[in-house]
Amino acid sequence: MALSGFPELLPAQRFVENAVLDRLRHTFELHGFAPLETRAVEPLEQMLRKGEIDKEVYVLRRLHADPDDAADSSGLGLHFDLTVPFARYVLENAGHLEFPFRRYQIQKVWRGERPQTGRYREFTQADIDVVARDSLSFHHDVEVARVMAEALAALDFLPPLRLQINNRKLMEGFFLGLGAPDVPAVMRAVDRLDKVPSEVVGQQLVDDAGLTLEQAAQCLALAGIRSLDSSFVSSVWALGVSHPLLDEGLGELAAVIDGCAGITSERLVVEADLRIARGLDYYTGTVFETRMAGFESLGSICSGGRYDSLASDGKVTYPGVGISLGVTRLLIPLFQQGLLTASRSVPSAVLVALPDDDARAMCDTIAQTLRARGIPTEVAASPQKFGKQIRYAERRGIPYVWFPGAEGHEVKDIRSGDQVGADPATWTPPFVDLQPQVISQKVVE
Amino acid sequence: MALSGFPELLPAQRFVENAVLDRLRHTFELHGFAPLETRAVEPLEQMLRKGEIDKEVYVLRRLHADPDDAADSSGLGLHFDLTVPFARYVLENAGHLEFPFRRYQIQKVWRGERPQTGRYREFTQADIDVVARDSLSFHHDVEVARVMAEALAALDFLPPLRLQINNRKLMEGFFLGLGAPDVPAVMRAVDRLDKVPSEVVGQQLVDDAGLTLEQAAQCLALAGIRSLDSSFVSSVWALGVSHPLLDEGLGELAAVIDGCAGITSERLVVEADLRIARGLDYYTGTVFETRMAGFESLGSICSGGRYDSLASDGKVTYPGVGISLGVTRLLIPLFQQGLLTASRSVPSAVLVALPDDDARAMCDTIAQTLRARGIPTEVAASPQKFGKQIRYAERRGIPYVWFPGAEGHEVKDIRSGDQVGADPATWTPPFVDLQPQVISQKVVE
Repeated sequence: MALSGFPELLPAQRFVENAVLDRLRHTFELHGFAPLETRAVEPLEQMLRKGEIDKEVYVLRRLHADPDDAADSSGLGLHFDLTVPFARYVLENAGHLEFPFRRYQIQKVWRGERPQTGRYREFTQADIDVVARDSLSFHHDVEVARVMAEALAALDFLPPLRLQINNRKLMEGFFLGLGAPDVPAVMRAVDRLDKVPSEVVGQQLVDDAGLTLEQAAQCLALAGIRSLDSSFVSSVWALGVSHPLLDEGLGELAAVIDGCAGITSERLVVEADLRIARGLDYYTGTVFETRMAGFESLGSICSGGRYDSLASDGKVTYPGVGISLGVTRLLIPLFQQGLLTASRSVPSAVLVALPDDDARAMCDTIAQTLRARGIPTEVAASPQKFGKQIRYAERRGIPYVWFPGAEGHEVKDIRSGDQVGADPATWTPPFVDLQPQVISQKVVE
Repeated sequence: MALSGFPELLPAQRFVENAVLDRLRHTFELHGFAPLETRAVEPLEQMLRKGEIDKEVYVLRRLHADPDDAADSSGLGLHFDLTVPFARYVLENAGHLEFPFRRYQIQKVWRGERPQTGRYREFTQADIDVVARDSLSFHHDVEVARVMAEALAALDFLPPLRLQINNRKLMEGFFLGLGAPDVPAVMRAVDRLDKVPSEVVGQQLVDDAGLTLEQAAQCLALAGIRSLDSSFVSSVWALGVSHPLLDEGLGELAAVIDGCAGITSERLVVEADLRIARGLDYYTGTVFETRMAGFESLGSICSGGRYDSLASDGKVTYPGVGISLGVTRLLIPLFQQGLLTASRSVPSAVLVALPDDDARAMCDTIAQTLRARGIPTEVAASPQKFGKQIRYAERRGIPYVWFPGAEGHEVKDIRSGDQVGADPATWTPPFVDLQPQVISQKVVE
């Protein structure tokens, strides 16, 4: 029985997911990010200690729990993100790690949320973070933005993406320069711009954050600024507000945007968007969000930022900067709308047809010869009529059927119908046919 | 805090694990096995319905459980293997799958066992299975044995492995031909040969299984037979027992052993071992176990067999044959004994040294040029003295340090000390240096 919130993929969809994960991993490793996995469970007190008692954690208990076993009763839960486990891992293994430590982590996480569109109880995230001991140079903010931008650009079968970057110092500096009496209240109000009309936010800025109408208008003007390059800096200056923290934030955001220059394309836009606040999170500088064209209702599918304290053991503090891509959140809607699939449902590029049962050993040898040369191959399960064997290949999307013969072999491209003589020791399909290809609706049309 | 039974790897170890998983995946896909993942949770009644109430399942509950939500109270548990979820997946998606369906599945599983040497509460398994509707030709037994044998042979950094194969029809046919009054009791006794001396098993065959002393001796003689080829057949005939089921089992086992011919090497032996029973499991024909030289106390690290009913919806039965490799079970002892590691703890093949902070943009450009050519590269975090930057590379195992210069660049192999002029647009390290390499102690010595 299917369980709501626990999506499962068909084989062709799993090929697409693997293609996404392989490309992410390739980009992350090119930039020196080390692979890491953490256990699926964390002590509950660890996960909830940041006051996040709202988190819908899944709690574990052993079916045959032993009351004398501390591990049974200590309250373990499934991790709901990859940041809390990574922080714990860094503290636990600090003596074995070299800092700054770059890692990527691609794993499932679990949240006991009420299932609804775009929300899952089990889903895969792909995180990158750079963490240092005591202090972390700002240039790692640029690095993390660039690495994720390159990774997203490599997912060229997705709808166009928009990586939106802002800086909390810029925002806080602006609000301080404006004379706001309660900066967190301003931040909370601005963070709602995604969900409510700007008039409502403006009213909240006056009512809850104690701003004048003019100050509120300035905040909304700031939030309205976007640019694909560092021209946002002069737009902010034009608002006539000044504060040292604002200058610092402007400089940082300009450096991040400039650092991503050259990656922007039709498929991936990187822009300064001064509306992005990442509200209640613990970010202290750069903040990231990402939207997918046509799927704006999903909200941000790739988010993160700079935090001054990823972890601390009381003596040493580990600042970090990171960004997390919601792989499941991204893919499931594309699968559901039929926008993304794979060119076949099996890895096999070749089906070796079986003329009769006595020919199985010969067919196996042909298959082994092709496999030894890196060509995924299967042998037909039973010696049906060749027409049936071809239809079997068609149903799975296998592009080639191999016909063994005592006088010589032939191989047929069942898409074009072309059939040619071939030797398993030398015949090679076009590179594009070796692995299942990701097909996006755009390509098909 | 480390949790007993939930092993976590350091980055260099994770490279080794990734190398194992990549090679498995490559072999499985070459043979046409499709990738599959199932959700981590199953309804408890599903997992326990085969009377396996001994299973140490982890039960889930939402921290803020809602008594009105059936999904909260239906009793979900973490899967303890990949067979039960696969069977459920096949029934659920039968209309979308083409049979015979080959899949591999590499995932974590969880068991709430009391942690002890070689036992984990969270561990990774790699399973392959072929499943069909109604009936599954015997040649898939040969296929599954061969695919896993090839996969194991490709893990050439492991200690020598021994894939031991037997056939339950052979055993049952022999016991029936012998006139055993209680075949399951004979099977249970023989299954203990791994744990207790053969005299004890002999006594049990008489006391519990109702055999005569002579019959018991015949059973022990059968269990003592092994061979690297199909010569076991004549050894069995020499015992003078005959039964149609015995003949069928002998034929099947000989076919499986012959099918694996050509894979056997110093690193991987495939043998008929007539002691292997896989006791209480639901196997009905071919059975597999695997032992690792020097780590026999781990028991079998790769097991499986043929089952007449992997799944059934009441109308249609789905027979299958499969084998499951315990990846964690295999690797953790090798890590603990320092027998296996990676040549470096980061993916980076090159560290671009940073002469001063103003040079960062130039260094980033060099790094981008190298990465665009597939060479994993990082830029030094800060402009320390070059000696310090080289030691930084050394600590991580990065083999090359790149020194940018206005007049031209140089790259140093810090293992040999060789330093040569180089252009980031053309310089290429030896292929073996591109990715971290798996190092086994044997190679180092």
